[in-house]
Amino acid sequence: MDQQCGYPRNSDCIFCKIVAGQIPCYELYGDDEVLSFLDVGPVSRGHALVIPRGHWQTIDQVPDEVAAACMRVVPRLSRAIMRATGATAWNILQNNGQAAHQAVDHVHLHIIAKSDDAGLGIQWSPGELDDGQALAKSIRQHL
Amino acid sequence: MDQQCGYPRNSDCIFCKIVAGQIPCYELYGDDEVLSFLDVGPVSRGHALVIPRGHWQTIDQVPDEVAAACMRVVPRLSRAIMRATGATAWNILQNNGQAAHQAVDHVHLHIIAKSDDAGLGIQWSPGELDDGQALAKSIRQHL
Repeated sequence: MDQQCGYPRNSDCIFCKIVAGQIPCYELYGDDEVLSFLDVGPVSRGHALVIPRGHWQTIDQVPDEVAAACMRVVPRLSRAIMRATGATAWNILQNNGQAAHQAVDHVHLHIIAKSDDAGLGIQWSPGELDDGQALAKSIRQHL
Repeated sequence: MDQQCGYPRNSDCIFCKIVAGQIPCYELYGDDEVLSFLDVGPVSRGHALVIPRGHWQTIDQVPDEVAAACMRVVPRLSRAIMRATGATAWNILQNNGQAAHQAVDHVHLHIIAKSDDAGLGIQWSPGELDDGQALAKSIRQHL
């Protein structure tokens, strides 16, 4: 792990190489904190990524203001992607850990337009919240 | 749609009623902009929501700074939920539109711990990015 322009950087990371300009991307947006570009393996048309310029593996490691910066651009990117593609429904997804479907170990948000035959497939099996009071207390104690 | 404390509010919205204290919740965190509480239909233990206090239906409608505020608290909430539950992988999910699995029409982020037998199920069918240059240009023109 080294530093570039004040950001932590991992020289083996494909997204760090994109940030550094060593690998090309189809850029949508960039500012001091974040970069957005098209996913090269889109699950639907307009599938975009938003990444912090700095290298952090999972969202729990990201400084609060960097996390904020990633989401600050999502409203405008969402509007632009939906206008460009004609989609009207979409998901924002951010995966942490291989078990949660993370494929590149550099924090990234997916913006994925949803249509009948393309986009993010979601399987949702809700249960009951049996011990809400105790669980909420336990989580608050870890904040 | 009316206003409360400067926020847009929808009197028919269950999340607005939670914000207003008219419906109880298992609160995890709150500040001027956002509220976090346990999902009452958890897909895994510790399933939490982060919502803006104001009512916006989808993320494209949310002011940039409110979107930023929602994500600013996700690193610390992620750490606390993972510590409290022992999970090590998790997803952040934000759905826009019924076709994209949105069930409550008030913007919300899910924090969902992932284990072998619980959490978010993801179906992922990637395609090819054939027209990246033209598509990126089109999206940038809509920014």
